[in-house]
Amino acid sequence: MEIKPIAHIRTDFPEKFGVPRQSGLAGSLKGMIVFEKEYRNPEALRGLEGFSHLWLIWEFSANRATGGQWRATVRPPRLGGNAHMGVFATRSPFRPNPLGLSCVKLESIELESPHGPVIHVTGADLMDNTPIYDIKPYIKYADSHPDALCGYVEGLQEERLRVILPAGLSEKIGDESKISSLVEILQLDPRPSYHNDSDREYGLSFSGYNIRFRVNGNTLEVIGIS
Amino acid sequence: MEIKPIAHIRTDFPEKFGVPRQSGLAGSLKGMIVFEKEYRNPEALRGLEGFSHLWLIWEFSANRATGGQWRATVRPPRLGGNAHMGVFATRSPFRPNPLGLSCVKLESIELESPHGPVIHVTGADLMDNTPIYDIKPYIKYADSHPDALCGYVEGLQEERLRVILPAGLSEKIGDESKISSLVEILQLDPRPSYHNDSDREYGLSFSGYNIRFRVNGNTLEVIGIS
Repeated sequence: MEIKPIAHIRTDFPEKFGVPRQSGLAGSLKGMIVFEKEYRNPEALRGLEGFSHLWLIWEFSANRATGGQWRATVRPPRLGGNAHMGVFATRSPFRPNPLGLSCVKLESIELESPHGPVIHVTGADLMDNTPIYDIKPYIKYADSHPDALCGYVEGLQEERLRVILPAGLSEKIGDESKISSLVEILQLDPRPSYHNDSDREYGLSFSGYNIRFRVNGNTLEVIGIS
Repeated sequence: MEIKPIAHIRTDFPEKFGVPRQSGLAGSLKGMIVFEKEYRNPEALRGLEGFSHLWLIWEFSANRATGGQWRATVRPPRLGGNAHMGVFATRSPFRPNPLGLSCVKLESIELESPHGPVIHVTGADLMDNTPIYDIKPYIKYADSHPDALCGYVEGLQEERLRVILPAGLSEKIGDESKISSLVEILQLDPRPSYHNDSDREYGLSFSGYNIRFRVNGNTLEVIGIS
């Protein structure tokens, strides 16, 4: 089946590195959904304003280079990168059809922006400019299962790093909400787990800034911003 | 983007009429996911057994006849069929990309069936032979939002019909679990809401049976099974 993007999402992540591994993990992260010209019709969003959460079905567009190959197992970063899990038991990008699924929080709908109707969301785990194929309302009675058992994922999301920011960060970035979002992302430990090298310096692109950091044990220290 | 089915689901619904309008509404309904030959690899399911719920991304294959047209608004049957809602504020099949999203309960995984590995699920709102494009584990911390606000959908799922079964039904169908599922489906009122004609007789195909029924007020009476 041929599917085509109805929209693209604008986020602060020009690269994959640093993007949270699931939606909702960094709840303050802002995203803006901009529709393709063909779909810029405010009527298509009528009634959406009453929902607090939305589903996005999107494309793992950063992984196109794999050429559509699929492997039966993948190594989830959160398991240290060594354990193999069946691809359908993971949310890995490397799947037969590179479809992503994310629940985001609906913040507001702007029906008449210069780009047509746009949807402002938070909590998206998507790279800037990711193509969106569908937007659906979150329907609690069908979608929410607070007692669901989550196998090897249980408990994995609990660990957060302590983050040390350099002096003068506020002056440099200015926007306090951006700083909060940055801290949230860093707390999640953006490193691939199989490179647990405490001497190594990492660089992360976020909202036009290049953030350099190091991790030692449970502490992440930002060592430069440009 | 071109996507291709990884599997098909086998359910008791040869036709669209009677299929529950959301996943989980008829929790006893059984489904079996059978992979396409290329994906019949038990390794691809490793670790899935620890999850209680799965996401299915599938195609509204019964609606292909619409020729890919999209309309900005649809009339959700549960609103009586008269109110127009934006297509992205609904889970309607008539959307730009005919992708469906359903959460189902994982009952068991059979790694070596005559059809390769199969997944047994319950609660699916899918027609028999629906193509599946992706299977993902339900991850509670990202997917479950018990406090989500659901706009015009709030409260709509509460009403269930009283169902009167004819004498001799058990003898005819035999399988008690099929009867329970049938009752669940009928309680949900399978009629399109804009045909609230109490004299009309409806026919529903379920698990090889043709069920004829009438609805009067809050009571659905099964008047024949063949």
